[in-house]
Amino acid sequence: MKIAIIGTGAVGGYYGALLANAGMDVHFLVHSNFEHVRRHGLIVDSVNGDMVLPKVNAYGAPEDMPRCDIGIIALKTTSNEALKTILPTVLKPDATVVVLQNGLGVERQVLKILPGATAIGGLCFLCANKIGPGHVKHLDYGAIRMGQYRIDEKAAGITDQLSTVHEIFSAAGVPVNLSGDLGMARWEKLAWNIPFNGLSVILNADTSMLIQSEPAQALLRTIMLEVIVGARNCGYDIGEDFAETMIAATKKMVAYEPSMKLDYDGKRPLEIDAIYRKPLQAAAESGYRMEKIRMIMLQLEYLDRHNRML
Amino acid sequence: MKIAIIGTGAVGGYYGALLANAGMDVHFLVHSNFEHVRRHGLIVDSVNGDMVLPKVNAYGAPEDMPRCDIGIIALKTTSNEALKTILPTVLKPDATVVVLQNGLGVERQVLKILPGATAIGGLCFLCANKIGPGHVKHLDYGAIRMGQYRIDEKAAGITDQLSTVHEIFSAAGVPVNLSGDLGMARWEKLAWNIPFNGLSVILNADTSMLIQSEPAQALLRTIMLEVIVGARNCGYDIGEDFAETMIAATKKMVAYEPSMKLDYDGKRPLEIDAIYRKPLQAAAESGYRMEKIRMIMLQLEYLDRHNRML
Repeated sequence: MKIAIIGTGAVGGYYGALLANAGMDVHFLVHSNFEHVRRHGLIVDSVNGDMVLPKVNAYGAPEDMPRCDIGIIALKTTSNEALKTILPTVLKPDATVVVLQNGLGVERQVLKILPGATAIGGLCFLCANKIGPGHVKHLDYGAIRMGQYRIDEKAAGITDQLSTVHEIFSAAGVPVNLSGDLGMARWEKLAWNIPFNGLSVILNADTSMLIQSEPAQALLRTIMLEVIVGARNCGYDIGEDFAETMIAATKKMVAYEPSMKLDYDGKRPLEIDAIYRKPLQAAAESGYRMEKIRMIMLQLEYLDRHNRML
Repeated sequence: MKIAIIGTGAVGGYYGALLANAGMDVHFLVHSNFEHVRRHGLIVDSVNGDMVLPKVNAYGAPEDMPRCDIGIIALKTTSNEALKTILPTVLKPDATVVVLQNGLGVERQVLKILPGATAIGGLCFLCANKIGPGHVKHLDYGAIRMGQYRIDEKAAGITDQLSTVHEIFSAAGVPVNLSGDLGMARWEKLAWNIPFNGLSVILNADTSMLIQSEPAQALLRTIMLEVIVGARNCGYDIGEDFAETMIAATKKMVAYEPSMKLDYDGKRPLEIDAIYRKPLQAAAESGYRMEKIRMIMLQLEYLDRHNRML
């Protein structure tokens, strides 16, 4: 069983290294630093113990890769245009595709590109950053919440394909929680990502600065509650106490810069489409306008364009 | 007829210099740079021609000033606590007080302090900055919209006291537009100040950067429309086309950093209370929650505290 890691940044590097370290047949598509990874492999400095993989199967182009049974998408969503050419090249037509990305809409895109595939969404609760070529620093956490995607967007339950992927990740030491309802899991993750990612960029703050500030906490709460109402309108009944649970959980976390903040500071494009526009559209289609989230999105769009001199 | 200029920054320095230049008996309360102004007077570099007043009546403390007939409040609203001691010291009990400040609530405060006074609100359409001790740079505009305040907050009409103040400013060459309905005039000004002041700080942008950006323009518009609904709920029926009028007018303005942006960059306190909290409260009392403006306020509160290390 061949596994393709599509995108070898913090997420792809971390999970790919764990899978390879467990003896699986892993093939890394490496966009930046391909030469370095080909020569020196991968290093993961992890709170759970460091990993050094001096030799990995690294590829600079999809056409050089073997056809794989499992594809793990770990690109930034801002690069998802590339999936159109990558997926049919790298994966078998009936592959299982695990989307380790935030936001909405990617599994649907995967099934449009590979109609015979199985799409599984994975939500990573991972604090990890790429700190150099082929070098990932793992700060905290690491579990993945996974659920299978159905093209009709109904709850898929715990399918055989989902269980297979579960076993693979478990064998590599990755804690996996299965969800029979991927949509619900995605919206719950959005309830964290939408306020924390956006405000960390707009207010130039890490999670701890936000959570310790009275006005910022009020903002986090009001935005989260709007996500929860949006989710409910889309058919996912996240409880109202979920916001307080998330705020309390984040209080206990180490101070952390959300991925969008790291992207902004690195002058990379922000994942506005997957984390903001798609959820806004989904809620609007269900008849609910998430006006506060639209404001955050517009602020991010302004900042992103100026940041990259567009 | 003695005139007290209470606060000799950009606004007080500019209008005070014009009044003194026209031969009126003007007395300046100078908080910072008192010694400099006492010795060297005031300089105004103006698009309408420069003014040099080598000698002005400058005072470092209210108790040194003569009792005046007219008081012109040109402090930042963030210093309004000081009015409690300044006004009774500097003004006659039946003085006419002209509040050249943004936001809501100050005229009421003035009448609480000096119950026998006449309170007039003045909205300055002025681009001017203090660029040094006793030195104001006047970039553009300069008109004042004035209306009398009634303690019951009803429209006062064009009163005799208002006409007197009108004559004084007109004699000094200041264009004055009278309003019989100060509340309406204040809310119209808020429809500009609330979006432009807040977003200029949050997005680190001048008026031109905001107005030329598609997402920022969408933000300006949605915030303005909320102010307009808030005003309507408070009994001030600003037309719905007012937002487009303001956006079009700002497009024609020279690029300008709103006063709140200058305060932020100078690490001075932001006028959040007068420009955001008071209007939010007024609208809430009328039964309308301006949720978008609350978000902007919370963002500003966070930024203001971090900016000043509070």
